[in-house]
Amino acid sequence: MDHRATPEQIDRVVDVIEDMGYGAKPMPGRQRTAIGLVGNDGRVESARLEGLEGVREVIKVSKPYKQVSREWREEDSVVTLGNGVVIGGRGVVLMAGPCAVEGREQILDIAAQVRNLGACVLRGGAFKPRTSPYSFQGLGVRGLELLAEARERTGLAIVTEAVEPEGVAAVAEYADMIQIGARNMQNYPLLKRAGRVGKPVLLKRGMSATITELLLAAEYLLSEGNPNVILCERGVRSFDPQTRNVLDLTAIPLVKSLTHLPIVADPSHGTGVRTKVTPMARAAVAAGADGLIVEVHPDPPEALSDGAQSLYPEQFAELVAHCGPIARAIGRNLATLPEPALTGAVKAAVHTTM
Amino acid sequence: MDHRATPEQIDRVVDVIEDMGYGAKPMPGRQRTAIGLVGNDGRVESARLEGLEGVREVIKVSKPYKQVSREWREEDSVVTLGNGVVIGGRGVVLMAGPCAVEGREQILDIAAQVRNLGACVLRGGAFKPRTSPYSFQGLGVRGLELLAEARERTGLAIVTEAVEPEGVAAVAEYADMIQIGARNMQNYPLLKRAGRVGKPVLLKRGMSATITELLLAAEYLLSEGNPNVILCERGVRSFDPQTRNVLDLTAIPLVKSLTHLPIVADPSHGTGVRTKVTPMARAAVAAGADGLIVEVHPDPPEALSDGAQSLYPEQFAELVAHCGPIARAIGRNLATLPEPALTGAVKAAVHTTM
Amino acid sequence: MDHRATPEQIDRVVDVIEDMGYGAKPMPGRQRTAIGLVGNDGRVESARLEGLEGVREVIKVSKPYKQVSREWREEDSVVTLGNGVVIGGRGVVLMAGPCAVEGREQILDIAAQVRNLGACVLRGGAFKPRTSPYSFQGLGVRGLELLAEARERTGLAIVTEAVEPEGVAAVAEYADMIQIGARNMQNYPLLKRAGRVGKPVLLKRGMSATITELLLAAEYLLSEGNPNVILCERGVRSFDPQTRNVLDLTAIPLVKSLTHLPIVADPSHGTGVRTKVTPMARAAVAAGADGLIVEVHPDPPEALSDGAQSLYPEQFAELVAHCGPIARAIGRNLATLPEPALTGAVKAAVHTTM
Amino acid sequence: MDHRATPEQIDRVVDVIEDMGYGAKPMPGRQRTAIGLVGNDGRVESARLEGLEGVREVIKVSKPYKQVSREWREEDSVVTLGNGVVIGGRGVVLMAGPCAVEGREQILDIAAQVRNLGACVLRGGAFKPRTSPYSFQGLGVRGLELLAEARERTGLAIVTEAVEPEGVAAVAEYADMIQIGARNMQNYPLLKRAGRVGKPVLLKRGMSATITELLLAAEYLLSEGNPNVILCERGVRSFDPQTRNVLDLTAIPLVKSLTHLPIVADPSHGTGVRTKVTPMARAAVAAGADGLIVEVHPDPPEALSDGAQSLYPEQFAELVAHCGPIARAIGRNLATLPEPALTGAVKAAVHTTM
Repeated sequence: MDHRATPEQIDRVVDVIEDMGYGAKPMPGRQRTAIGLVGNDGRVESARLEGLEGVREVIKVSKPYKQVSREWREEDSVVTLGNGVVIGGRGVVLMAGPCAVEGREQILDIAAQVRNLGACVLRGGAFKPRTSPYSFQGLGVRGLELLAEARERTGLAIVTEAVEPEGVAAVAEYADMIQIGARNMQNYPLLKRAGRVGKPVLLKRGMSATITELLLAAEYLLSEGNPNVILCERGVRSFDPQTRNVLDLTAIPLVKSLTHLPIVADPSHGTGVRTKVTPMARAAVAAGADGLIVEVHPDPPEALSDGAQSLYPEQFAELVAHCGPIARAIGRNLATLPEPALTGAVKAAVHTTM
Repeated sequence: MDHRATPEQIDRVVDVIEDMGYGAKPMPGRQRTAIGLVGNDGRVESARLEGLEGVREVIKVSKPYKQVSREWREEDSVVTLGNGVVIGGRGVVLMAGPCAVEGREQILDIAAQVRNLGACVLRGGAFKPRTSPYSFQGLGVRGLELLAEARERTGLAIVTEAVEPEGVAAVAEYADMIQIGARNMQNYPLLKRAGRVGKPVLLKRGMSATITELLLAAEYLLSEGNPNVILCERGVRSFDPQTRNVLDLTAIPLVKSLTHLPIVADPSHGTGVRTKVTPMARAAVAAGADGLIVEVHPDPPEALSDGAQSLYPEQFAELVAHCGPIARAIGRNLATLPEPALTGAVKAAVHTTM
Repeated sequence: MDHRATPEQIDRVVDVIEDMGYGAKPMPGRQRTAIGLVGNDGRVESARLEGLEGVREVIKVSKPYKQVSREWREEDSVVTLGNGVVIGGRGVVLMAGPCAVEGREQILDIAAQVRNLGACVLRGGAFKPRTSPYSFQGLGVRGLELLAEARERTGLAIVTEAVEPEGVAAVAEYADMIQIGARNMQNYPLLKRAGRVGKPVLLKRGMSATITELLLAAEYLLSEGNPNVILCERGVRSFDPQTRNVLDLTAIPLVKSLTHLPIVADPSHGTGVRTKVTPMARAAVAAGADGLIVEVHPDPPEALSDGAQSLYPEQFAELVAHCGPIARAIGRNLATLPEPALTGAVKAAVHTTM
Repeated sequence: MDHRATPEQIDRVVDVIEDMGYGAKPMPGRQRTAIGLVGNDGRVESARLEGLEGVREVIKVSKPYKQVSREWREEDSVVTLGNGVVIGGRGVVLMAGPCAVEGREQILDIAAQVRNLGACVLRGGAFKPRTSPYSFQGLGVRGLELLAEARERTGLAIVTEAVEPEGVAAVAEYADMIQIGARNMQNYPLLKRAGRVGKPVLLKRGMSATITELLLAAEYLLSEGNPNVILCERGVRSFDPQTRNVLDLTAIPLVKSLTHLPIVADPSHGTGVRTKVTPMARAAVAAGADGLIVEVHPDPPEALSDGAQSLYPEQFAELVAHCGPIARAIGRNLATLPEPALTGAVKAAVHTTM
């Protein structure tokens, strides 16, 4: 309360809180009176209190999310993908592939390469949200079909982005995990649809989303009945044009203290430039990430999008070589493809000679 | 180019630029060689160049947008709404109303009040994008119907938000202007749909969108054939939790130098707290805004959303009283409802006694 | 407290709070127990509490500053300068002049011009803090002498910057008001010295300082015995390279609600580019600023620093012409030089023919 | 140039550039003409060009710093401290100790502990810059004496902060390395003094300093003749109150590509909370940091400042245990005390039984 608040104004706030169904506990202090709201279940409309006369500030003590919180579920959640790979367990999962699916040869080639180098999941965009309307927007459903073919040949699970509610079903039909991109983190109709479609969801943190907002976006997915949610730190906006985004790795231990959901890091978008990807991939594993999602392209200078941040396959090999010992230094390891997937993959590797 | 770039690397960059259909002009300097790309039409994929060996940085000199730029159209664009009100001309247009349509009595009451106080446009959300899945999400189509009824009674034009591509047609059927909210500024499927539906669009700047990104989002609308776009500054994210958003009023003269499109300001979301709305509304008019969009509620403490930043009607009256002389100080005035709408409005005022 | 906090951990926190001399009030809630600290006098070391086991978060409810707060002093403070001009009253005070004092002719010329156009205070740097060691660093004491000469001839008060503790005395000897620049807002030895020297202080907000930090920096000055402090909003750092700084005008009504100190705005540094200065100057007055500090140079393209944001004298004339009616629209006016100063000034104007 | 710039305006810009002693190379493009400035030696006052008519934007291509750049010196700089420890070589140097020196027993105790656990440098503030004037401000010269005693007993080198120009000499007399804190990164009088005093300097990145500004601040030190500069990433300001600072680890590989100077990370200030320190310390080593500076206190809950982010000695032991294998995973190791220092240290360890 303001220090000039009258006893009547204080009483009015107490009344409103009780009217909302909560307990109110006034604490007169030296400068002013604070009123504690007891029993907050995450549904309090604080704006209603802020609007009352004599109220100076509404300070939130309890968290506005429920099902995603550690209070709701103490132990870590693990998400199992279609090929048996587990995210959120002891193994650090590598997801790799091009920014966009550009054609059959490109995607089958890179899928085989990243699989042989240690990836368990293939990334690749079929629908691309682009800042400019004049940029390449993806191959659409044809891209999804090519991803499915790559899965058959390699045993990799597929993660690819859905960009609108109507498109979720199609993506879910082909993909093992639906990606919600940073620009769509607060696209609620999209989140609701993704929450109902029965496939794991990789939810990227918005460009300037707070951790609380990220967790509330995840709450949209869980509240629709989908517990298989993986968070992704991909860099936040900052003031220095030289670093474009700041990969906020502190978010990893922070998120792990607040939620039971797994979290992975995207050092490609998080840095925007190839030479910074491997150092930040190493750092993310060291900070405790449950996985990495990395852009790798067979020929980055020819990439139709994000070429500057895509690794050459041999750079990805080096990344894997560095990250293994780092994972082991903190009691983890790099996840590997389960046996059946592996067997399929070996066969695929033989056939990907095109 | 990097200072260690070899002549071969420089030649390779020149080749790629020419291969892309542009001119290349190398300029050897003291520290390193710069290569100018001549003839950029806004379609250059800079990532392709960034990926080449020896390239240190790609610096953009020309703008990535076209139709929204002052170069494309020298004179100011003006947008005329259904009730004849013009945005982007000499008159500063006041848009006012509640955050959300909550019921028939509420919306008809506030519509009559803001109309009598000087507003030309009624705002009010029927579909609400809310950070938490547990918050009030709007009345939906019923809300649109009530807005249309308010228009009939008052002569006000209606602006309300569309939150997903499928919903655009319904909103366009009822509204005079479709709002794209800050969270959806880069929701491209939504922008494309809104660009094709034939109604003016109010495009809000994203929470941490640069001016370039805002203009590129507007380019999506224009490139679909819709020239009737109004930009809206509504505050950007900053580091000080005490001010929540920072209403970036410098964006107003800046946008006016870069584009021919009108721009309005939203001091309600821009500040988040009632006592700051009127000072910032005045400041926005003084900075050259073509209009204001303000939250006004008949009874803010009972509002279902955004109560803390909604003005009481008498506070809106004061805002109008302040903004008129400020508009005149810079050679403008406050827009008024054109005659026919006015006549209808007077009748409506008589009937809104409910 | 964490939701897993044991009763022993809760008791320990209560003990520590009481040991620190405050009251402790535990409030068991649905998710977890909150403990209110009662009687905070602004000296609580919250870090000590954050370090205790079972503590999840320390949330500050009372303000950490004292003498600068509205609670400490209800009515507005006003600061009277050497020439009788009052900052913080009804009159909006214009301060104008070049970024740096460059020579005798330049400073006497521009002083006479801005005085005749309506300024009451002359700004001009003698000591310049420059980002690069290779930039012009100011004329030093010679610059102070020239400022004093300009004061004698025009009746303007002088504001100029002190950049190190040892330099404060010299600046105080010549200037009517000591400026603490944005980079030095948290230079505590400098603040302490400025707080003891007996001249009013113009304290600029740091590049990314929160309002709380700005007020705590002012508290350093007041706690040394100097009540004559004027705050200055000069733009904060943001993510958009196109706007350089964001002039945070919401800070003006916000600061006025938290403190009794006057606040002025610097639209020159706040925007960094000449064409944006006048719109933002108007906006600052409309938002309630007690004054403006503006860079004006007789020949901006030849300025040794900040040429791009310096107004031509005729642009400053236009700024004054716009700001007068805006001030009157909100019940204020532009401050004028008191009679004696005015008389001196007229004489000076006659002699400034050099 | 603006697209409406006249040929005369273009010629004028060319003249000014040539007048400044550089070459000018106009490049007419599709939208507008760009003019390249050739021969930039880092001393160009771009503001002078920005002020010319018809100029739209001045875009910097070459870097404004010189001696700190990789162009100036290709190979990595290494800095050797008084006890023979080398920063910037293969060994990752651990610096540890309390936020502030609080008393003899405290500092001797913790010095012995961190030394035995693997630190090579003791940190500890004697002069503390505090946001509030009412917080503990350090023991001053007495603190320096205690640090010197701790060095004698342990063989550790000492790093401690200087907060004002006059204090540099005293700090340099006792310390092996002078720390310039984040708030003082642009305190130029302090930098100049520190550049002349002949001791290595640890320069912390400012709260919202760009990498370019950090390197320009370092340039102040080098241009005064001090080549022994170590940069320090300590977290930058962000929009999420939950993470306080964002430890910008991408800065590490970025800085290493731009400058030859070593860079270390401060995960204590970078995160502000104890449980995040060890994960981020690991991440910093994985990202390629040349060292860590970590707050460790014998009894954090009793610390006079920064208790919440100070590690317990056993937590520091765990940090060391994790960081060793991570350093080795990328071809480095943890630095150890050279023999003579070690011998002294062993003796000291015997005597620190107090």
